[in-house]
Amino acid sequence: MRFELTKEFLEVLRQKIASEDIPWIRENVLELHYADVAEIIDKLNNDEAKLVYFLVDEDTQADILMELEEEVRDRFLASLSTKEFADQLENLDSDDAADILGDLPNEKIQEVISHMEDDEAAEDIVDLLNYDEDTAGGLMQKEFFQAHLDWPVNRALIELRKQAEDVEKVYNIFVVDEDTRLVGVLSLKRLLFANTSTKVADLFQSKNIISVKTSDSAEEVSNVMEKYDLVSVPVVDYQNKLVGRITLDDVVDYIKEEADKDFQMATGITDNVDSNASILRISRSRLPWLIIAMAGGIVGAKVISNFEDSITEIPAMAFFIPLITAMGGNVGVQSSAIVVQSLARGDKDLGRILPKLLREAKVGLLNGLLLSSLIFGIASFFENSELGLVVSLSLFTVILFAAIFGTLFPLILNKYKVDPALAIGPFVTTLNDVIGLFIYFSIGLLIYGA
Amino acid sequence: MRFELTKEFLEVLRQKIASEDIPWIRENVLELHYADVAEIIDKLNNDEAKLVYFLVDEDTQADILMELEEEVRDRFLASLSTKEFADQLENLDSDDAADILGDLPNEKIQEVISHMEDDEAAEDIVDLLNYDEDTAGGLMQKEFFQAHLDWPVNRALIELRKQAEDVEKVYNIFVVDEDTRLVGVLSLKRLLFANTSTKVADLFQSKNIISVKTSDSAEEVSNVMEKYDLVSVPVVDYQNKLVGRITLDDVVDYIKEEADKDFQMATGITDNVDSNASILRISRSRLPWLIIAMAGGIVGAKVISNFEDSITEIPAMAFFIPLITAMGGNVGVQSSAIVVQSLARGDKDLGRILPKLLREAKVGLLNGLLLSSLIFGIASFFENSELGLVVSLSLFTVILFAAIFGTLFPLILNKYKVDPALAIGPFVTTLNDVIGLFIYFSIGLLIYGA
Repeated sequence: MRFELTKEFLEVLRQKIASEDIPWIRENVLELHYADVAEIIDKLNNDEAKLVYFLVDEDTQADILMELEEEVRDRFLASLSTKEFADQLENLDSDDAADILGDLPNEKIQEVISHMEDDEAAEDIVDLLNYDEDTAGGLMQKEFFQAHLDWPVNRALIELRKQAEDVEKVYNIFVVDEDTRLVGVLSLKRLLFANTSTKVADLFQSKNIISVKTSDSAEEVSNVMEKYDLVSVPVVDYQNKLVGRITLDDVVDYIKEEADKDFQMATGITDNVDSNASILRISRSRLPWLIIAMAGGIVGAKVISNFEDSITEIPAMAFFIPLITAMGGNVGVQSSAIVVQSLARGDKDLGRILPKLLREAKVGLLNGLLLSSLIFGIASFFENSELGLVVSLSLFTVILFAAIFGTLFPLILNKYKVDPALAIGPFVTTLNDVIGLFIYFSIGLLIYGA
Repeated sequence: MRFELTKEFLEVLRQKIASEDIPWIRENVLELHYADVAEIIDKLNNDEAKLVYFLVDEDTQADILMELEEEVRDRFLASLSTKEFADQLENLDSDDAADILGDLPNEKIQEVISHMEDDEAAEDIVDLLNYDEDTAGGLMQKEFFQAHLDWPVNRALIELRKQAEDVEKVYNIFVVDEDTRLVGVLSLKRLLFANTSTKVADLFQSKNIISVKTSDSAEEVSNVMEKYDLVSVPVVDYQNKLVGRITLDDVVDYIKEEADKDFQMATGITDNVDSNASILRISRSRLPWLIIAMAGGIVGAKVISNFEDSITEIPAMAFFIPLITAMGGNVGVQSSAIVVQSLARGDKDLGRILPKLLREAKVGLLNGLLLSSLIFGIASFFENSELGLVVSLSLFTVILFAAIFGTLFPLILNKYKVDPALAIGPFVTTLNDVIGLFIYFSIGLLIYGA
């Protein structure tokens, strides 16, 4: 049975915490899965949280801590003494501890580390802090199983049993030579069914070992793990020495975050704001995009005002303003979305910009022709064939332009190391609006003026 | 070293295939990781692919087959005889085989199954075909490790070794009672280090066992695996009998597909069209959204034409048309994106629509007030304070309306089991455009008319 957190349960729990009914808490909260305990603690205040949290055994504390919502975790940890904070970090996997520490100011990091008792754990964390968080080094943990080539299975079992204390989840055992260089991988399954006198060297898989370098980007790690169906991947340094491992769950988090980020960019929300955040924070996170859109609207107004005479003469020109801007925006977003997606998938063919551009131009040409013939009929019927011609010609030009611009813009952003997803949001739409208006009225002037 | 597929390599390979240089192919292709071999086969034609594919051993064939691009795989399998097809299916994990078969017409399914020699495998596949592909039953595979409660470790090892033939990847061993009801989970790690005379009953974990039901939705499975950090989850039927398992890699594929789908919806691309597809196919996949946007533009033109007199009298009204439509669209997309995201995360609080709506309304109110005061100044300076008032009042109303509508629309879609992500695309923008125009000109008429 999966636990379902209800308001009623929370209320009862709060009362039990207030009356310090420890036996009740033990029976009704501590028996739950740690992810459920974390969900409960997310809803408690710091004092209530502390009481529950410190009833739990140390290993489960670490699990709970990493499951808490980031805001709650930061708040909770900030309420601890430096010594308590250091103790909590020692319980964590090295990658998690480094992630939490990495967000703190430098002095605080030093202070916390100086309070850690386990020197080896402290060293691991300090080492991990050196890596950029978007690289394999930043994703990896220092806890993994490793076996030496020349161990027999029974020795391997003894050594691994020692390592098992630190390694929570085991997927594969990494096999190293005497210089701790990665030479292969041994699955737990093979080890389990092996004869105790067999040597690791005779069991392990040395062909096609997939590893990543500490400096590989998180995106690359994610692509490699997906391509090769890996649940864990060994991380090596430049000398091919084994320094860590990355597990799929960390990468899944990364994939989800990236997808969220792209989605947010495309929909004009700058920040991953919790839906329970204050009105003011939500407001602020959306304003930048709206201001960009408004600035675009103002420039658009300026463009149209330059053609005021056209509107006075032919008011029907105004009718199709929304159509022109909407079409430019939509076509632009479609083209840039495709480019952003291929970039995110690590598509390397993109270096060759020209064929991509050509294809989008062709698609724009085709859709432009189709839609502009359609609108010619409609606008002619609406007003007269002269306006039909203006709208139709403009629409065609706008679609073609938007397709090309929508393709180029994210590619250019990417080239200058700006997140290309930025292109899909209000940015491209707004620019297309302004340029579309200019095209529309210029063509109008040309045709009506003639 | 990871393999990098180059044009030059492909050319050489093609020549070697043409001259049937089997030793060269063995040495240079078959030695590669199966994912790389799949990448190579993706680029070959059917005849070339067959030659390479059938040089590989059966187990690796299955791995390669599942790594091929779907189009290539379908084409390749269609070129096989029914007998060959059936042989290939027998090599696959049951979930993969069922996925491939499920896409075929019914007669073809029966024909292929009748050609399968392994009755048990055929039965597993037929069973899996009964489940909807978006449910746990549709995601699960029939291959997993299971141990009985009362087995001692040494018996478990012998039994598991037998099961190991079928189960490619082992994460956990599921523990069942005499009625094959799921009672717990045993980690490979614990089994590895256990005394051979210990009983499974003394080793396994029976507390907080997380399982899913065959009828649970894929979304629920994904949320459960994420929440509880699972690499594999047991699937049970209504009597809690163990019937399958789902592994994280299948769910990762699902997560990626869903994220892609939302992104595509938001950016107006209906279909997951390969970026190498023909111009015509790409064109077609984007047209639906463009036609919706164009229809919106035409309705917008109709709305404005109803206010033709206003424009003739005050041409400056036309200047701010793009600003009004752009702002309505952007605000609407922001609000609906937030709702779609919480729905995708399985946020259940959403059942209570009112507080959500209230919050978005407040954010709209705040941003609306801010931006409309700003635009009042700008539009007044641009033309006169009367126009300033019209634009400012309209902008405020449009933002407030778009925020509320953007929140409600995906919630309504979701209620009627339509993918709420549909709301973020051109749909909401287009509707907001039309309604925004109506608001703008109505307010204009009201103020100028007075």
